[in-house]
Amino acid sequence: MKNLIVQKYGGSSVATPERILAVAKRIASYKKKKHRIVVVVSALGDTTDNLIELAHRVTSQPSEREVDMLISTGEQVSIALLAMALHKFGVDAISFTGAQVGIMTDSRHTKAKVLDINAERIRRELRKDKVVIVAGFQGVDTRQNITTLGRGGSDLTAVALAKVLSAATCEIYTDVNGVYTADPRIVAEARLIPYISYDEMFELASLGAQVMQARSIEVAKKFHVPLHIRSSFSSQEGTMISKETKALEAVVVSGIALKKDEAKVTLCDIPDRPGIAAKIFDAISKAGINVDMIVQNVGRTAKADMSFTVARTELGKTMPAIKKIAKALKAPKVLFDDDIAKISVIGIGMRSHSGVAATMFKALASKKINIEMISTSEIKISCIVARKHAEEAARVLHKAFGLDVGGKKIKKK
Amino acid sequence: MKNLIVQKYGGSSVATPERILAVAKRIASYKKKKHRIVVVVSALGDTTDNLIELAHRVTSQPSEREVDMLISTGEQVSIALLAMALHKFGVDAISFTGAQVGIMTDSRHTKAKVLDINAERIRRELRKDKVVIVAGFQGVDTRQNITTLGRGGSDLTAVALAKVLSAATCEIYTDVNGVYTADPRIVAEARLIPYISYDEMFELASLGAQVMQARSIEVAKKFHVPLHIRSSFSSQEGTMISKETKALEAVVVSGIALKKDEAKVTLCDIPDRPGIAAKIFDAISKAGINVDMIVQNVGRTAKADMSFTVARTELGKTMPAIKKIAKALKAPKVLFDDDIAKISVIGIGMRSHSGVAATMFKALASKKINIEMISTSEIKISCIVARKHAEEAARVLHKAFGLDVGGKKIKKK
Repeated sequence: MKNLIVQKYGGSSVATPERILAVAKRIASYKKKKHRIVVVVSALGDTTDNLIELAHRVTSQPSEREVDMLISTGEQVSIALLAMALHKFGVDAISFTGAQVGIMTDSRHTKAKVLDINAERIRRELRKDKVVIVAGFQGVDTRQNITTLGRGGSDLTAVALAKVLSAATCEIYTDVNGVYTADPRIVAEARLIPYISYDEMFELASLGAQVMQARSIEVAKKFHVPLHIRSSFSSQEGTMISKETKALEAVVVSGIALKKDEAKVTLCDIPDRPGIAAKIFDAISKAGINVDMIVQNVGRTAKADMSFTVARTELGKTMPAIKKIAKALKAPKVLFDDDIAKISVIGIGMRSHSGVAATMFKALASKKINIEMISTSEIKISCIVARKHAEEAARVLHKAFGLDVGGKKIKKK
Repeated sequence: MKNLIVQKYGGSSVATPERILAVAKRIASYKKKKHRIVVVVSALGDTTDNLIELAHRVTSQPSEREVDMLISTGEQVSIALLAMALHKFGVDAISFTGAQVGIMTDSRHTKAKVLDINAERIRRELRKDKVVIVAGFQGVDTRQNITTLGRGGSDLTAVALAKVLSAATCEIYTDVNGVYTADPRIVAEARLIPYISYDEMFELASLGAQVMQARSIEVAKKFHVPLHIRSSFSSQEGTMISKETKALEAVVVSGIALKKDEAKVTLCDIPDRPGIAAKIFDAISKAGINVDMIVQNVGRTAKADMSFTVARTELGKTMPAIKKIAKALKAPKVLFDDDIAKISVIGIGMRSHSGVAATMFKALASKKINIEMISTSEIKISCIVARKHAEEAARVLHKAFGLDVGGKKIKKK
């Protein structure tokens, strides 16, 4: 649709009636510029957490279907209040739940996947020149059961709607000005990144930069949805995310990401033969645990050590499953360490530039920070370090890659 | 459906996680007795009021469609939490919003009328031996917009479901033991009424006894749905409401009702000719105001005085409308009094028993309570008195009709 913008406002942007009114004012100013606008909203402030706490006061193991029924009310409150606020400023607006605008998902409650969106109702209201407000984070399965899309799912709602409606851009409003080279609370010299590629942003988001849900970036890339991450508290431009970075020169490393909520598990002396890894991770997957990094090193004997990381909150679920498989494999020793952090450097410049790993390891060594695990991809290098060194690691790497002065430049090929 | 009970729990019965668990325990004990159960729940405690307050922090005039979108979340929270609580006790249960179980209404937001219920989904789940939990107070119109049924609308949901599913009984759980001959907080001698007719209960509810919504009683009567009003905090039987009172002898007056939230408006010296009343109440109706009592008395001249009562909260809307029509009618004087109360005596015994009005007026006179307006129906007499006399009026009438000793008896014809 022509001139269409999808705007997504996160929970902190709509935490109070005053902020909802401020968001409505911003939308009203866009409307005056003849844009068509679809707004996706999250739940007010801490609403989702409060609802989950309420559920836990009833039972320690709430059914996931009923959790979705419960927490989807958070966004429904937001959309109604935002519609009222827009009416107050004379803007014609109408709110819809995920079910009402046909956001069809599979039935995996609390982490459903969007299958299809029947946007006919939205198009009809846009043609009437209304601002259409859609509840983020939620959908329905084929039997009209309410589902939710997992943490950060409102981003996914926004990206999916931008795709289906062929929006010119999808703006993700948050409480920071955009994406930074590192967390400014940890690295004082961190700078705003004006342009970044989907791939880099995906890695940054996966690795701990919490401005946007990683899955949504993947979807945006797949469907070429241009993203703009910016602050709902200022009119300053934020970070543009697209296929090609617009800078003539790209930097080697775009940003540093830090993740402190992981734990490491090591199986010692497992037999070094085909099929063993499959057995281990099949058991873990069946226990419903998501694994992040996996590292295996083969020693001089026929035995190997295998380490992997999981979310720290899942360690309790992981250990019984892994001890069982360890026993079956006759790998008697299982170690774990939940006092770790993952520090990563990300940059598409790495593809054409060597020496990034060496620079990273040297910088960490200069501060006597021991590296416990290493994992690399085409555009990122991650190291596990002791949690107490995490912030120092971020600072030394930020400096080592020149991010405080705009980043080490490389000419584009 | 055989052995089916519909149970409705009001907001005070589910105000906290602890109370929700208590309600779940009660339902679980019914389930053991091989009942099929459909549960209708209201929003937790003051949730609806809190949501409306939140809306008013955004705008003083929220759109009614968005108010429905907002406040319908209250019941959605309740149904999810109750389902979780039932699961905890090992009872298979599933929750549904009004939209999900096809409670179809018209589009009059905040006061929609139920048009139809497509109960197929409920029947399917009941056949699987599940307890089905339905959000009270809400439905959807033909375009899937969420609607609400007005204050006390959960009662209507329960009665409508009981009718559609041919339930054996519809239990209305509240925080009192049932219906009393008068408000026990005002009249210490008030007694629980074990059996009462729909008609009497309708009048009691309309006139201020707040245990159940009046409209729901009307619907229950129309479709012969047996009602049982009882406490969710005890296992004691409450008040049974049906077509025929089961007592061999009926009492003249069943109960006293008191309503303190009305205001009186009087138009003085209006022309006494056909069509005038129509003009006045047409104007008031167009202003969206519900009128309760209307009294006109013709004097010795060709002029009349016309008085009527409205909800006190609507007085602000009523006065401009009525002043305008007064001007058009050349009836210059409009008086109002918002310091009144309505005291009523109700009883189907009145139909066959004379002297009720005389007893009532004499009792009020004995306490020097002045009567400002009188209105009667087949089974009730209402008087407007000064608000400061309201409670004394209730006490003297309770005694005058022998309600403290079981009521003045009359043989049934």
